[in-house]
Amino acid sequence: MDVFEAIKGRRSCRKFLPDDVDDSALDAILEAAVWAPSPANNQPWEFIVIRNKDVQERIYEECDACKKMLFEKSGWKWVEKYRLDFLQEAPVIIAVIGDPQKTGADMFLEGGGSAYQHACTAAIQNMLLAAHALGLGTLWFTLFDQEITKSILHVNPSKNLIALVCLGKPGVESMQTPRTAVQEKTRYV
Amino acid sequence: MDVFEAIKGRRSCRKFLPDDVDDSALDAILEAAVWAPSPANNQPWEFIVIRNKDVQERIYEECDACKKMLFEKSGWKWVEKYRLDFLQEAPVIIAVIGDPQKTGADMFLEGGGSAYQHACTAAIQNMLLAAHALGLGTLWFTLFDQEITKSILHVNPSKNLIALVCLGKPGVESMQTPRTAVQEKTRYV
Repeated sequence: MDVFEAIKGRRSCRKFLPDDVDDSALDAILEAAVWAPSPANNQPWEFIVIRNKDVQERIYEECDACKKMLFEKSGWKWVEKYRLDFLQEAPVIIAVIGDPQKTGADMFLEGGGSAYQHACTAAIQNMLLAAHALGLGTLWFTLFDQEITKSILHVNPSKNLIALVCLGKPGVESMQTPRTAVQEKTRYV
Repeated sequence: MDVFEAIKGRRSCRKFLPDDVDDSALDAILEAAVWAPSPANNQPWEFIVIRNKDVQERIYEECDACKKMLFEKSGWKWVEKYRLDFLQEAPVIIAVIGDPQKTGADMFLEGGGSAYQHACTAAIQNMLLAAHALGLGTLWFTLFDQEITKSILHVNPSKNLIALVCLGKPGVESMQTPRTAVQEKTRYV
């Protein structure tokens, strides 16, 4: 698939079919991730491929509890209504882990030290585009309690869980969410 | 260009030819940015397209001073040797600005509030891929003093400068930096 077509056609998918993801597609998506740029080529990413339904159920339950807390704190109606079934239904969830020790010289800057996260999120965007090109849907999900979810996944406490990427065949055709025209967001100097 | 070819073929470019970037290419690259996903479709990004050599010179001087400070703090030899000429030479620099107020419900999570940055960095990755597909080189640069550089670019103090993306025709063929095999970075659950 053409890169511009992939960039513009990618959607967030919240409804997955139960069909498993081919290993060859999964490998291609993971491989796409590591070609993201990173500070001094530190490659601060790690991945956990989750296909175990018991683990997914524990993640779902913790995220559902987290969602209720977020609704109480925010009062935002969409948070209350937001169903998390995709965490149970997706045939694969890829947890993306970042290592704060693998950031670059930005660690010495005021407010710095997050370049490792940015490399991981560039890697995630590569994964979303690769999956879309292979006819698969993805959801970049971040509304979880960091410590609890790391504990479920046995992630080293020194590392951070950047996102859970749900992956599978889309169960519905997702609508394109509108964008503000880039010209309204751009200033020329 | 095929999306996998773009993902794998993209390089960091640190030497640019003086040739200007066509407006049509620049527009396509900016357009690619806004199709990144963002929390609740908040689209927390803004862009400043810099082609003014005086402004580039001021950015270069401040980043060079920042680099000296980073070398003193880190003692890392590569920082001292790292030449920043690309900030003067690139025909275009795109400053990517993020609005912390346009983050999602993650603002209520412990250690949260950075999802707006992650959306901006996904947008940056789209830009790098789009530029590569159009035969242009890019550099994702972040070693700047946040407040000074925002001041040069008249960025609202409430917003953050996420990166400076240098853009232009590559002056040399960049080497592919090696990657650790993704299988060594992946665990299956």
